[in-house]
Amino acid sequence: MSVTGPAGFRAAGVAAGIKAGRPDLALVVNDGPQDAAAGVFTTNKVKAAPVLWSQQVLRERRLRAVVLNSGGANACTGPEGFQDTHATAERVAEALGTGAIGVAVCSTGLIGQRLPMEALLPGVDTAAKSLDSSERAATDAATAVLTTDGGPKQACVSHPDGWSIGGFAKGAGMLAPNLATMLSVLTTDAVIDGTELDAALRAATRTTFDRIDVDGGTSTNDAVLVLASGASGVRPSGEEFAEWLTTVSADLVRQMQHDAEGATKAIDITVRGAVSEDDAVRIGRVIAEDNLVSTALFGSDPNWGRIAMAVGRAQAEVDVDKVEIATNGVTLYAGGTRAADRSAADLSGRDIEIVIDLHLGEHAATILTTDLSHGYVEENSAYSS
Amino acid sequence: MSVTGPAGFRAAGVAAGIKAGRPDLALVVNDGPQDAAAGVFTTNKVKAAPVLWSQQVLRERRLRAVVLNSGGANACTGPEGFQDTHATAERVAEALGTGAIGVAVCSTGLIGQRLPMEALLPGVDTAAKSLDSSERAATDAATAVLTTDGGPKQACVSHPDGWSIGGFAKGAGMLAPNLATMLSVLTTDAVIDGTELDAALRAATRTTFDRIDVDGGTSTNDAVLVLASGASGVRPSGEEFAEWLTTVSADLVRQMQHDAEGATKAIDITVRGAVSEDDAVRIGRVIAEDNLVSTALFGSDPNWGRIAMAVGRAQAEVDVDKVEIATNGVTLYAGGTRAADRSAADLSGRDIEIVIDLHLGEHAATILTTDLSHGYVEENSAYSS
Repeated sequence: MSVTGPAGFRAAGVAAGIKAGRPDLALVVNDGPQDAAAGVFTTNKVKAAPVLWSQQVLRERRLRAVVLNSGGANACTGPEGFQDTHATAERVAEALGTGAIGVAVCSTGLIGQRLPMEALLPGVDTAAKSLDSSERAATDAATAVLTTDGGPKQACVSHPDGWSIGGFAKGAGMLAPNLATMLSVLTTDAVIDGTELDAALRAATRTTFDRIDVDGGTSTNDAVLVLASGASGVRPSGEEFAEWLTTVSADLVRQMQHDAEGATKAIDITVRGAVSEDDAVRIGRVIAEDNLVSTALFGSDPNWGRIAMAVGRAQAEVDVDKVEIATNGVTLYAGGTRAADRSAADLSGRDIEIVIDLHLGEHAATILTTDLSHGYVEENSAYSS
Repeated sequence: MSVTGPAGFRAAGVAAGIKAGRPDLALVVNDGPQDAAAGVFTTNKVKAAPVLWSQQVLRERRLRAVVLNSGGANACTGPEGFQDTHATAERVAEALGTGAIGVAVCSTGLIGQRLPMEALLPGVDTAAKSLDSSERAATDAATAVLTTDGGPKQACVSHPDGWSIGGFAKGAGMLAPNLATMLSVLTTDAVIDGTELDAALRAATRTTFDRIDVDGGTSTNDAVLVLASGASGVRPSGEEFAEWLTTVSADLVRQMQHDAEGATKAIDITVRGAVSEDDAVRIGRVIAEDNLVSTALFGSDPNWGRIAMAVGRAQAEVDVDKVEIATNGVTLYAGGTRAADRSAADLSGRDIEIVIDLHLGEHAATILTTDLSHGYVEENSAYSS
């Protein structure tokens, strides 16, 4: 179960012909009774047409539907690209009998190419006709948005009080700070207004989607949307709703980490004892993006010297002599020098935990990343994406 | 010719036994009559013992000698590591009949291991005995400092007025912003005082050693030193000297770019039309460090969409609709959209030139980088460095 888990939602995923013979168009519809919505988007200055459109329509914090396509990012496509996005929203609105202002658009794929509208627009009609609230429909939608992903990523939680949150996400490369270059649609049947929903989404993404960093590449198309139908009739507290939304988001982010391009390792980098959470995040990201650390971990090498190098070049408060570095539970560096032989740390498994204790303050953050493998180089040098 | 090109210098390179059976210890000696010197060092907060030592002895801007070793960075080795560096300088001073305060120390290799002093110290004596001013001695020194480098990197220029500048450098990985994780020793027989020498070195490194960026990894050991013997008896203007020092530095940096770990491409990224030089440098570095750009270039793919993505995530002033992106002379992106089919740009050769014109101001900068290849992953996952 994912986006159709909560009551009041239907979904569809079809092969519109944008990508030859593969599912490439998804539709998620909120049948209400309410239509509160919120979204967070890429911080890249180069924003794709669907991002510009969706930011605009979300000003009212109401959405009836989200249409998503893979096979083309519709980024760097000029005014014509924006017209294509607008036409897509209009077609969805027509098919649903609503206004385009209630339709968000998301796209993913190669930057710089116009979308084949002659395939996409009829695909919208086909998708609208096949909408239903089954689990299969949710999976079809989650599948249609994939690019280099290995498979769909879905999650759903049901609260004992009778409301639930579901969602899917895609993202396997260009996974980066400030939204992990990915698309995600979350749905809930809780009763919640747009302002609360927006606050909950920002709280949830800050510690989940914003904390996966595979290659530092913030995409032009990142978007996380949440739609609330109110169909359960239950109004949770804003705080509890945010907690549960964070749980679903964290689940999807973990799935993206495990499915990242060419990844052979799932690496959690925790920085604690920092003077601020921002410092902890900054250090975690520098380590996550460091190619020398990432390649060493691909080789299962507990090369803490490279980690120390990365800590030292981060823009953050660090006292070199206080820093402790541990990998998989073994402290390798402390007090300005080696604390144990690197052979004491076994990094041969898939999961690697790196803990940096700065011993300066009370703040901490965890960044999820992966290793840098031959598979990553292969996929990104051979595949135009 | 390199460090022994200018009059007043002797050099040596020997196999001290730090690395099994390979040259690993270099010595460069200034026989005067003058001993002005200057140095610039890594900006990493984690500084190796030899960096801490050399920064200290350079306060007086005078050096008689530089001793360099490969086979160990002597970084993150605590007070004992610093004592090892001090002992190395003392041994050089004894052998030359001078004070340790006149001896800079540089180390490169694996972080976090103590140096084998029982091999290193007798190696100093051997090196001191084999010092001479021949071209071969300079090449021996340039060779002894290599780690994963393919070969020695040397340069020398002779001014018509009778003075010259020579130098060698090493560095093939961890090549990064703010000194390209490398060691370099430059020598000159010009008559120049320490203050002028320091200004010239900072001017030269700012646009050369500081503008190569292969993987964003600023090392713990970066150092560029320049020693002036005054043996030519000729005093050039500070401005002219800085220009010539820049020429030699640029030559060495180009050699490092061509020899970077696993590199199959030499990529020059020029950002122009920026509102400031800092903005141009920042954008150039984000592109240089972007794995998605680097892997696309490894595949000879003119994937300008990834370049646009990287421009958009840089902390710099950018107007997306004004940006122009050209690769090897072909403008692929302009006016917010595609300007030519990517097939128009041929990136199959070794040399790739990327030009970003922001059309916002008058400032420009060029960053040298390489592609991200299987060779890089192989070398850095299999080799503990």
